Amino acid sequence: MSEKRRKFWGWGYEDDPVSAEELAWYEKTWSKHLGIAKFDVTPPPRMEEITLRAPRIAIPTSLRDICTSEKWDRLFHSYGRSGAEIARAMLREFSNPPDIVAYPRNETDIINVLDWCNSIDAAAIPFGGGSGVVGGVEPPKYERYRGAVTISLRNFNRVLEIDKTSQSARIQAGVLGPSLEEQLKPSGLTLRFFLQAWEFSSLGGWIATRAGGHYATLYTQIDDHVESLRVVTPSGVLESRRLPASGAGPSPDRMFIGSEGTLGIITEAWVRLHRRPTFRAATTVRFKDFYQAADAVRAISQAGLYPANCRLVEAAEAEFTEAGDGKHDLLVLSFESGDHPLEPWMKRALELCADYGGEYDKDALNQKDSQRSGAAGAWRNKFLRGPYFREHQIARGVMRDTVETAITWDRFKNLHANVKEAGLRAIKEVTGRNGSFTCRFTHVYPDGPAPYFTWHAFGDKAKLPEQFFAIKALASDAMVDNGGTITHHHAVGRIHRRWYDRQRPELFAKALSAAKQALDPKFILNPGVLVDPKGE
Amino acid sequence: MSEKRRKFWGWGYEDDPVSAEELAWYEKTWSKHLGIAKFDVTPPPRMEEITLRAPRIAIPTSLRDICTSEKWDRLFHSYGRSGAEIARAMLREFSNPPDIVAYPRNETDIINVLDWCNSIDAAAIPFGGGSGVVGGVEPPKYERYRGAVTISLRNFNRVLEIDKTSQSARIQAGVLGPSLEEQLKPSGLTLRFFLQAWEFSSLGGWIATRAGGHYATLYTQIDDHVESLRVVTPSGVLESRRLPASGAGPSPDRMFIGSEGTLGIITEAWVRLHRRPTFRAATTVRFKDFYQAADAVRAISQAGLYPANCRLVEAAEAEFTEAGDGKHDLLVLSFESGDHPLEPWMKRALELCADYGGEYDKDALNQKDSQRSGAAGAWRNKFLRGPYFREHQIARGVMRDTVETAITWDRFKNLHANVKEAGLRAIKEVTGRNGSFTCRFTHVYPDGPAPYFTWHAFGDKAKLPEQFFAIKALASDAMVDNGGTITHHHAVGRIHRRWYDRQRPELFAKALSAAKQALDPKFILNPGVLVDPKGE
Repeated sequence: MSEKRRKFWGWGYEDDPVSAEELAWYEKTWSKHLGIAKFDVTPPPRMEEITLRAPRIAIPTSLRDICTSEKWDRLFHSYGRSGAEIARAMLREFSNPPDIVAYPRNETDIINVLDWCNSIDAAAIPFGGGSGVVGGVEPPKYERYRGAVTISLRNFNRVLEIDKTSQSARIQAGVLGPSLEEQLKPSGLTLRFFLQAWEFSSLGGWIATRAGGHYATLYTQIDDHVESLRVVTPSGVLESRRLPASGAGPSPDRMFIGSEGTLGIITEAWVRLHRRPTFRAATTVRFKDFYQAADAVRAISQAGLYPANCRLVEAAEAEFTEAGDGKHDLLVLSFESGDHPLEPWMKRALELCADYGGEYDKDALNQKDSQRSGAAGAWRNKFLRGPYFREHQIARGVMRDTVETAITWDRFKNLHANVKEAGLRAIKEVTGRNGSFTCRFTHVYPDGPAPYFTWHAFGDKAKLPEQFFAIKALASDAMVDNGGTITHHHAVGRIHRRWYDRQRPELFAKALSAAKQALDPKFILNPGVLVDPKGE
Repeated sequence: MSEKRRKFWGWGYEDDPVSAEELAWYEKTWSKHLGIAKFDVTPPPRMEEITLRAPRIAIPTSLRDICTSEKWDRLFHSYGRSGAEIARAMLREFSNPPDIVAYPRNETDIINVLDWCNSIDAAAIPFGGGSGVVGGVEPPKYERYRGAVTISLRNFNRVLEIDKTSQSARIQAGVLGPSLEEQLKPSGLTLRFFLQAWEFSSLGGWIATRAGGHYATLYTQIDDHVESLRVVTPSGVLESRRLPASGAGPSPDRMFIGSEGTLGIITEAWVRLHRRPTFRAATTVRFKDFYQAADAVRAISQAGLYPANCRLVEAAEAEFTEAGDGKHDLLVLSFESGDHPLEPWMKRALELCADYGGEYDKDALNQKDSQRSGAAGAWRNKFLRGPYFREHQIARGVMRDTVETAITWDRFKNLHANVKEAGLRAIKEVTGRNGSFTCRFTHVYPDGPAPYFTWHAFGDKAKLPEQFFAIKALASDAMVDNGGTITHHHAVGRIHRRWYDRQRPELFAKALSAAKQALDPKFILNPGVLVDPKGE
């Protein structure tokens, strides 16, 4: 249905933008990194190789204009885009596709689709950009559902209203990052929610999954950007009042932020925007010891300086992205403002770095656009291009995945050491070979960092999905055992359920289930995510 | 049961600290302000003047150590401390006291009290410091309850653990402001949650009511200070995981923050602290036009400067507290830091003020402790002493009360003009005389301010409670009609219910009721606040 079609198995459009040169660089790096002389390359799947289960339910006449059972649509909506999901796609494993994909044009269409799902006992799965990495958009496997209908929000793609005075906008939930910014551009305002999946993730997806964005401090997660929400539930439409703050009872918005499509379908939101930065101060700081560097980051996070970027990258991870020399941990540090020059802010942050042995790049500091060049630029480019390489890794048996968390500072070092140790051990146990397991901070708070662990391993292509999960499971155990959350900004979905169930209070699950029951009495919305239908 | 007994009818201890001199000043001011030549003074109530309804339920033997039906305890826990409630107390109106007051010593005691309330169909009313102004601690009037048990948290008064590394502490919910800070002091850390009711309000109360504190920006409400919670519900005990941030499902803490004792009794919390400020920059800025001043505050709030204080006070209100000349609106502006000097921050804020015609006090800027002296100091002193005068006002028929809200900047001027107009009209309609109705900002956000309206009127002492409510009602209508919230930080209680019901989405109320049902199946906790028992 779209002009430029997305890959049904991987990241981006069918017309792969990865160049032979880029690929050669990566192949060389993986080869060196994992000690593999030569890779055997599996070609990407073609539609005609896959036979899909016939749809278990039929599109009613009244919904024919907005629903389809076309093969591409069912394939594309079968998975999110985690390594494990792409590995299943590369194995041509599409045994549980949605039966029907709906593309509602407005809220009435959504209401009609939900009514129909309710009437025939079909699961309804909200779908934003499709970039998720936690199995949040897979059809459920419970037998009670006669079918699965994926509801794509792609037609909800407009910025509806911009309030320049309050620096806010009313925006439809299905809009993807680039279009959102394009539409905001004439106003001089921006959401600046530049997560790695920005190109193929939606505002509604960010809200439903509590995504983390561009800013390393203050405006870290989408939560604080939400002024109000509109949500369509199987019991009707709900709209919260647009307010800068309120003390009237528990926040209605906070019940839906992070609800992952289980309580309703977010159709639009008023969100807080930022002025485009016109002032910047950016540099990189090198440290000889990761824990000393972490102490510097802690000092900055507790100083009330609020840098836009404060991403500490472990030496080995910095080397992998050609940003570092492999001997120094690297702090990518920047301040941004649409209002004032930032020298005093940066000066104080660098003093704090120096207290912990940090040495900064003086040239970068005096250079315009230094966040896009030098070490910071190298890291940034690899970061933004990363998702395009997932299928190429998997085609070669190279596994790359992440676990990410947040933890208070007092427990950070223990968690860091134990998760790395567990991760490396897991890689060895599961694949029989050594791999890598490195850490960076994506976001930092006065009371603790959000450590993000990236690992690489060489797996058995026939068993990659299981191997992905086995390694994630052992690392996740260590993360949650050491006091961390199972996720700081990747959400729970189906993949993180086991650990979510351990960390969330049992009585909260009971209360949340009851709230869901009130809004979704037949439990059709994204079953299996966050809470289970009764009896499952 | 306490050594120094609190007044059962008003603010503070029985030993009133209000001096004759202070009182004379106020009397003169009220006299001038309201055009009353001489006040007739009603003496405060004495216990022996009041006959209480006999307790409708009896204390079971097993709870005899922690429960009482003593007269003072029942009187003291009958009301919060709003003008309307104190007016009822001054009228010797105590027709609906709690039957029993429980002083649990630990969570087991709370569980036992709740079990007992459940077993006999008694309402259970959590009670923190008792400073509330929205009728949040009154026994319900529904016939289904055989009695009302107030559960005081006053024995939960300790700071249990301080984590200096993460700048957080685990604190019992019943601790009042002064004791909390006293216990934190040796650590060099502080919660700095200096609301007006600080002396007689508790951490658990702040969390349950989403109170607003000292900081005018960033750390405005208690919400962002909460790292995790422990809550005793009629269905068991719940504890959330201590984390700087999480993306794992809707936040459990956010369901309890603002729940006003309806979902459970908060017993302790990990909260985020601040370093004691060692650097300050403070001054006052005078404006000739309130809306121009508001524009300056908007510019500051959107500049990423984050002042600790940014309280804009209307000319008439500034004059009343002897901080202003009655011709100029006053912005009390200060920056604080435990890390660095603040000249660049203040300099930029003052430039923004100048853009809108603001003239600042140069002497104050260069003076140590200027936030405690001059115009800012005058305002601060009147603010902190304010609650002590409520009963003295009411004794003279002088009504003083507030309505407070938050609104996005684009709608602020309309709301401000309409609420003032409605408030002044209401005073005239209800009392037959003119009064005053002034505004200040207590907190400001990039997308809007929290306007706080204070009004004075001269009422009919025999009808003060009704007159208080009638004026509040008309002003509240205007506030909510013009897009504001019924409360930014005073909570909902029983007094704001009518407007809360208008502003909160109907389906959210349904979901919240269902969540309550799961935690409190017999609906014993604070019935009538936020949601109603079925059939009421």
